[in-house]
Amino acid sequence: MVEQKTEGARRRVTREDVARLAQVSVPVVSYVLNDGPKNVSPATRDRVLDAVDRLGYKPNAAARALRRGRSDLLGFIVPSIANPLFASFALEVERAAAARKATVITVSARAGQVGVALERLASHQVDAVLVATGLHSADVAAVERSGLKAVLLNQPSSVPGMPTFSIDLYGGVRAAVTHLIDRGHARIAYLGPADGDPRRYSGWADAMTSRDLTLGPHIPADFSRASGREAIDQLLELPERPTAIFASSDQIAIGALLGLHRAGIHVPNEIAVASFDDSPDAQFTWPPLTAVHQPLREMAEDALELIVSGTGPTERMYDAQLVVRESTIGAPGV
Amino acid sequence: MVEQKTEGARRRVTREDVARLAQVSVPVVSYVLNDGPKNVSPATRDRVLDAVDRLGYKPNAAARALRRGRSDLLGFIVPSIANPLFASFALEVERAAAARKATVITVSARAGQVGVALERLASHQVDAVLVATGLHSADVAAVERSGLKAVLLNQPSSVPGMPTFSIDLYGGVRAAVTHLIDRGHARIAYLGPADGDPRRYSGWADAMTSRDLTLGPHIPADFSRASGREAIDQLLELPERPTAIFASSDQIAIGALLGLHRAGIHVPNEIAVASFDDSPDAQFTWPPLTAVHQPLREMAEDALELIVSGTGPTERMYDAQLVVRESTIGAPGV
Repeated sequence: MVEQKTEGARRRVTREDVARLAQVSVPVVSYVLNDGPKNVSPATRDRVLDAVDRLGYKPNAAARALRRGRSDLLGFIVPSIANPLFASFALEVERAAAARKATVITVSARAGQVGVALERLASHQVDAVLVATGLHSADVAAVERSGLKAVLLNQPSSVPGMPTFSIDLYGGVRAAVTHLIDRGHARIAYLGPADGDPRRYSGWADAMTSRDLTLGPHIPADFSRASGREAIDQLLELPERPTAIFASSDQIAIGALLGLHRAGIHVPNEIAVASFDDSPDAQFTWPPLTAVHQPLREMAEDALELIVSGTGPTERMYDAQLVVRESTIGAPGV
Repeated sequence: MVEQKTEGARRRVTREDVARLAQVSVPVVSYVLNDGPKNVSPATRDRVLDAVDRLGYKPNAAARALRRGRSDLLGFIVPSIANPLFASFALEVERAAAARKATVITVSARAGQVGVALERLASHQVDAVLVATGLHSADVAAVERSGLKAVLLNQPSSVPGMPTFSIDLYGGVRAAVTHLIDRGHARIAYLGPADGDPRRYSGWADAMTSRDLTLGPHIPADFSRASGREAIDQLLELPERPTAIFASSDQIAIGALLGLHRAGIHVPNEIAVASFDDSPDAQFTWPPLTAVHQPLREMAEDALELIVSGTGPTERMYDAQLVVRESTIGAPGV
């Protein structure tokens, strides 16, 4: 039904229309618009271009893609677009691409499942793919198999021949934990993946040991709010309760805050919370989160500049900035 | 640099490669793969197809799009992908599309600026576009001009010839406000856009007047957390402070909660808060939000079914379900 309703009333001008008006065959129209592969007499060419003007025919992206071997389409692979951090990242990538007349297809694919996403993106002839999902070895192989130009964002390890733009993960975590130590905390729990990027764990561990502090508990949590919430149940059963928490993502911290509020524990007076990402969420939690800022806009700009213009660095590590809010220093006057 | 690095090492098999191996011209390869427009002798055709097999050449989506007049690409226009509600919506649309072998390009475009987004999507030959950004008249005209098959989601008004899938906005707001009235509240503030969908405002107004309650203050707020935060400053200056708030989106409510916490006002004991959307955020705010649930998955499924299969209803209004949490009834035992 919708077919009829819309097709009939407002359909676009096609090559067929141009061919009809110019009284040539459809392939001839293609030869003129694609400047080949067959030659067309100047007179015929003029007739076709005249018909194109009069009908206001716009050669479409699919045609351009075939003609120029470029689609102006880019792929962006994230663990899940529903994760607010990656939603914000997608907006930055979309803006950076639009400023360069490129369009982005964002596909959600968890680590280990990137291959399928790549196949779909390749079938749409994306010019390149930005990958923000942490790659497993199978994923790296899939990227190489795909033959797609890939730019890696915040990956646990670099891959030869693939440009990488990452924040200083180790330095960021270490700065956040050191901030907690400077606030007088000696028992600081680490909430984060057990198998994730080792730089997070060592940033926490080195910050503690360098001040001769024994490592507090490491409570496993994936990057979801739900796992942050569950981690608090484990934390509250510990014989010696930590006085501070470092959560390896804002989402984990948001779940942790809910757990702490439910337990009637005051943040930050009884337990301070610092996290990683400084996504827009961090400003609106209660209390607002002290967090290491992810330079999403800078990563998007640098990656797009490299992909579209082929200029700029192929590798960059951004300094980590800690944004301090009430989750570690208490409300103003507290 | 990246060009060289990647192009050289892992470039895809092209029509040129097939032509070379089959010892034919590139156009001939196209004729075989596109089954026209020119005829090819059976012997040559076999040679080309054999070369395609041996090289593992995959005709790409751009070629298919031209050949079949279909791209398997869909557009999804949202106000902003960084808005958690629309990020969750994008994930549902992405999943519903993937299940039907379609790929989604999500573009962020505010009301009044949908035209530009449509032009970009049209240039990539999307088969259809889902529009979740509230359309202004200029946007409606742009949709009609684009000639794209459009499916509208949660629009303030229906457009002739365009399928629409919406929640019962009026009924949802009225149910949330009635819930607050049933909890004993008589002064209920409405936080929401002054110019937005009239069904929200009247859902609130009718719920109040039907119980002989005078309309509480209407404090303008767009659908952002920041404006919800600012609305609280205005609310706290009122001579008669409301005992409850209805926020027309979770994002407004999240900003409002921050403002209330900052002011040391207990939620829900001093001011109860109910909102609209029940995005994943609503479960992790403090306190968790009582909210009207948006059937994002159902809307995505129904819209994709209609677009891809051409089956199912072209119009549907979903019943609104109120999810009650601590922001209106207090924590368990409170």
